Amino acid sequence: MNTIGHIYKLTTFGESHGTAIGGVIDGCPSQLKLDFGYIEQELLRRKTAQTSTASQRKEPDHIEWLSGLLDGVTLGTPIAFMVRNEDCKPEDYEALKDVYRPSHADYTYEQKYGLRDWRGGGRASARTTLPIVVAGAIAKQVLKEKGITITAEVVSMGDVEQASKEGDTVGGIVECSIVGVPAGLGEPMFGKFSAELAHATFSLPAVKGFEVGDGFALAKMKGSEANDTFINKDGEITTLTNHSGGIQGGITNGNDVVFRVAFKPIPSISQPQQTVNRAGEPCEIAIEGRHDVCALPRAVVLVEALAAMVTLDAVMMAKVCGQNL
Amino acid sequence: MNTIGHIYKLTTFGESHGTAIGGVIDGCPSQLKLDFGYIEQELLRRKTAQTSTASQRKEPDHIEWLSGLLDGVTLGTPIAFMVRNEDCKPEDYEALKDVYRPSHADYTYEQKYGLRDWRGGGRASARTTLPIVVAGAIAKQVLKEKGITITAEVVSMGDVEQASKEGDTVGGIVECSIVGVPAGLGEPMFGKFSAELAHATFSLPAVKGFEVGDGFALAKMKGSEANDTFINKDGEITTLTNHSGGIQGGITNGNDVVFRVAFKPIPSISQPQQTVNRAGEPCEIAIEGRHDVCALPRAVVLVEALAAMVTLDAVMMAKVCGQNL
Amino acid sequence: MNTIGHIYKLTTFGESHGTAIGGVIDGCPSQLKLDFGYIEQELLRRKTAQTSTASQRKEPDHIEWLSGLLDGVTLGTPIAFMVRNEDCKPEDYEALKDVYRPSHADYTYEQKYGLRDWRGGGRASARTTLPIVVAGAIAKQVLKEKGITITAEVVSMGDVEQASKEGDTVGGIVECSIVGVPAGLGEPMFGKFSAELAHATFSLPAVKGFEVGDGFALAKMKGSEANDTFINKDGEITTLTNHSGGIQGGITNGNDVVFRVAFKPIPSISQPQQTVNRAGEPCEIAIEGRHDVCALPRAVVLVEALAAMVTLDAVMMAKVCGQNL
Amino acid sequence: MNTIGHIYKLTTFGESHGTAIGGVIDGCPSQLKLDFGYIEQELLRRKTAQTSTASQRKEPDHIEWLSGLLDGVTLGTPIAFMVRNEDCKPEDYEALKDVYRPSHADYTYEQKYGLRDWRGGGRASARTTLPIVVAGAIAKQVLKEKGITITAEVVSMGDVEQASKEGDTVGGIVECSIVGVPAGLGEPMFGKFSAELAHATFSLPAVKGFEVGDGFALAKMKGSEANDTFINKDGEITTLTNHSGGIQGGITNGNDVVFRVAFKPIPSISQPQQTVNRAGEPCEIAIEGRHDVCALPRAVVLVEALAAMVTLDAVMMAKVCGQNL
Repeated sequence: MNTIGHIYKLTTFGESHGTAIGGVIDGCPSQLKLDFGYIEQELLRRKTAQTSTASQRKEPDHIEWLSGLLDGVTLGTPIAFMVRNEDCKPEDYEALKDVYRPSHADYTYEQKYGLRDWRGGGRASARTTLPIVVAGAIAKQVLKEKGITITAEVVSMGDVEQASKEGDTVGGIVECSIVGVPAGLGEPMFGKFSAELAHATFSLPAVKGFEVGDGFALAKMKGSEANDTFINKDGEITTLTNHSGGIQGGITNGNDVVFRVAFKPIPSISQPQQTVNRAGEPCEIAIEGRHDVCALPRAVVLVEALAAMVTLDAVMMAKVCGQNL
Repeated sequence: MNTIGHIYKLTTFGESHGTAIGGVIDGCPSQLKLDFGYIEQELLRRKTAQTSTASQRKEPDHIEWLSGLLDGVTLGTPIAFMVRNEDCKPEDYEALKDVYRPSHADYTYEQKYGLRDWRGGGRASARTTLPIVVAGAIAKQVLKEKGITITAEVVSMGDVEQASKEGDTVGGIVECSIVGVPAGLGEPMFGKFSAELAHATFSLPAVKGFEVGDGFALAKMKGSEANDTFINKDGEITTLTNHSGGIQGGITNGNDVVFRVAFKPIPSISQPQQTVNRAGEPCEIAIEGRHDVCALPRAVVLVEALAAMVTLDAVMMAKVCGQNL
Repeated sequence: MNTIGHIYKLTTFGESHGTAIGGVIDGCPSQLKLDFGYIEQELLRRKTAQTSTASQRKEPDHIEWLSGLLDGVTLGTPIAFMVRNEDCKPEDYEALKDVYRPSHADYTYEQKYGLRDWRGGGRASARTTLPIVVAGAIAKQVLKEKGITITAEVVSMGDVEQASKEGDTVGGIVECSIVGVPAGLGEPMFGKFSAELAHATFSLPAVKGFEVGDGFALAKMKGSEANDTFINKDGEITTLTNHSGGIQGGITNGNDVVFRVAFKPIPSISQPQQTVNRAGEPCEIAIEGRHDVCALPRAVVLVEALAAMVTLDAVMMAKVCGQNL
Repeated sequence: MNTIGHIYKLTTFGESHGTAIGGVIDGCPSQLKLDFGYIEQELLRRKTAQTSTASQRKEPDHIEWLSGLLDGVTLGTPIAFMVRNEDCKPEDYEALKDVYRPSHADYTYEQKYGLRDWRGGGRASARTTLPIVVAGAIAKQVLKEKGITITAEVVSMGDVEQASKEGDTVGGIVECSIVGVPAGLGEPMFGKFSAELAHATFSLPAVKGFEVGDGFALAKMKGSEANDTFINKDGEITTLTNHSGGIQGGITNGNDVVFRVAFKPIPSISQPQQTVNRAGEPCEIAIEGRHDVCALPRAVVLVEALAAMVTLDAVMMAKVCGQNL
């Protein structure tokens, strides 16, 4: 279950302080000249998005390309890549080895697997999202040639500076738009474009909500307010409004696909917290070390990346069914 | 893409006014004596939930069991079932054959497939969710034996009576709780329990939002407010609060799993609406016939059913990994 | 695991003497006008292929189409269909309820599922292959439009008349050719065209061997004998010989794909046999009733059907990767 | 399609002369202390099996473990590993860049992907099977604890010394036995144990035939000869003979699973051969360099590895269905 996608598939691997983080992309079209500069740029967006809100980890995130390429051109075979975890300081985490950090995945991983990699969050660390940026950047490159662009931004965020002073963290909301998406993407009944987007974004750490178009606000509207009137605009059928967020019946209608993702605050706060250890004994912890105050700036590129992967996958699926997109 | 689930799988088929609606359940444990009375009761919940809010369709929804059973006991082979569409009046829809109803799937289906079954919404009709109730009822029966119960309710809904008078419709929010769920369900990275629930619920018509625990409200909290403190309660590790909705790092922590689903208003309103026809010409429609004012009462059992299917699937997956749940 | 295919997918259901046998085809291209006459004809090939070699079951095999069609044209939604089991005589099998027929699936099903449908072989009956003929006929229709034809024949078979007199049965070999198949079908590493064909044909009852091209005979050749020399024939690259059976590196090379399937004799013989019952006690049985002397005549259309399904699936997969086939 | 398995899954990557060959194992049980010595030993079996029959490539095949382990114990997260391709001499292959070697995958890869990695066979090289040995060794370790052992051997092979003198190559047959396998493995209709084994072994380069039990010989037998009589042996139900190769109705019956795999001769021969180049012009080639005379000695461990992967996968699947194996 570390694989996402039906045709354009990404399998990821790696723990925060293991040897490496990486992925294998299977199903990428052949004969594509990868834009390595763009991929590095996207990784930088993930890394340096943060300033005062950011953790201090200084990993260079240098990608090693392991397979699937000849002179930088995709062969149609699996593209494997990895980034070594060079800046490991597992001793930073030794104190947390036997303690369950509140609202982290420590306890649940241990319940599931009987053990966990306690070094920096292990597999549950936000660092493990790095391969998503790589696969997303490649997907964006393919989509761009088809006139599809994807842009996300933070539309709501707590007061970072205040939280930082208080040893606290904040959450927020990212909104993403997919522009230029053709009508006809998404597969009913259980592969709806909205469902695939929801699934993908809920794969990110700290995501607790997802909505398409006017989302939860639609629950308070009447049909006459919520419906998007079809119009003929310069010979093309489109809609006057976009309450639906570009998706009707789970299938794209050609309008911009718009969705929002809610992130809870990062659970690693430096304020002292009550918790229990593995023996079930109450104890107090204060999580020190390198931690972001807010995940949102990093999350923007991740949300874009997942949207790109879902869109490319849907475009490829649609080709199968005889559509020319 | 008409299949959901990894181990406990449901494949659905059928259009609103085709011959039949049905499904095939693959992966159901063998030697289970099906509680047919309970399944019928669940179907009734879907059908009669509505009173003044309901459409008038009088389908008896009699299930024919086609395979997978011997004397009412599951064989471990695929369980196929169907309900005939006896009350078909396609002529009711003839007027809509060449017109795109606003915020319906008419236009998107036609863009995707080049044609659509225009009789009553075809594959996009809410009637096609019937097999979900059946598969969900069986899943609930299995889960009940494991001490897991699932209950949903409408927690927010527009003013139905007012909307009815105005020829309008309303949306709302359904909240669902999974109680007794063991810790350790859900599969990182891309099979998180929350992601599977989001995917499943977004498969229902009219769903536009999904959130787990405090959901979107978490985006406005600080970490110190959002974190769930671990405590030792009578020798068991649990949490003092449940802002996380029972899921941390995508894996259940043993607390109640709580999530909410936002439904937009039903797009079929009897008020006149502007739209275009297949030729792209503007026209006006008023959708007459049998239509609900609000989908919420029917949706409750559907949300429960999908939650049950996702939970059973996760329980079965967890067994594979050596957990005894 | 009752589903085959990646894009063009068939899910089958049904036991020999349950209510019905049927299937759901998901992923069939939309806008295809089904040739129902051809499908019925293919079902007849399965049914009447046998003469003296055949069982006497008189099922009419009338297909009920349940979904996915509008005026006989595919909608792109799941095509469900079924055939009722009208000629049920479970009492014929009552004597075999607690006895394990040698080389049948009685014992293994019971070991797997804890129970079995003992009426006529249940899920393991050859009758359950009927949906394969339907899905195969549709696949053939699509392929024919692309210039791809599939033909199988019996190339080796035991002496049926002699076996019939002796209350015995015989096996044999079916050879199948796929002509007009484009180069480039099949997906390395684990979706090779040969692997998909092997997988598909081993899904038929009684199959015990599969080989491509010269198959096992290649194991005795030298490279200089086995290699297929590339030549330029009228401006097209092809090979002088076809020892490879049209597949190299798991991918089709444009030559005819040729493979052979070995069927063991039908295990239901009327000669008395020693066996054990469920209690493990030795006993003797003589299997009476309606049974073929040889499965081969029926198997021909099944092998063709599976070859067609695998080929269409591969053609659709190849479209995804940017090939124009 | 570079992934194999349903629960215990291997995704492989790499070209013969790319940066690295490797794989990601997803679904491996947690808390397993890997026997690295055994894995290295299995890799050596692949590498040094050959003596006079072997190519001279001197790669050390040192595995780098990238993820999924903590102190050598599996975490339940993906286990990624790779082996660098250190001994690259792409110039050896430059002459073959534009020529299609007979019965190699050069032509088919190029037809499929529009380009190919011409350096040493690229993705189609036998070297890309290395990850199978790793995943197979881990599977064997798990199976051994369950009392299941897997052994393959060469049962037929051409005259290597003679072929070597003649600049030719030979094929052969590998037979594999799975001993201690419980009854009840395999999933009808399309996940039969035999079908999974056939699929897996056909994923190896040069495989052209597969048979279970008496295989093709069964096609010439009568039912009375081919049937395996059930007997009660010391209170356990088993069969007197094993013509079925331990599989009936696609499900294991508790007897040894026995199957055979036919390999064609390696197509790289040093004798001069006629072929065509990319332009379709006839030309002659003599393939020099490091090539085995026979793949069989190397293939033994690969066949075992795939059998182990399929068996472990089936054992895990069976657990899901409530069997205690």
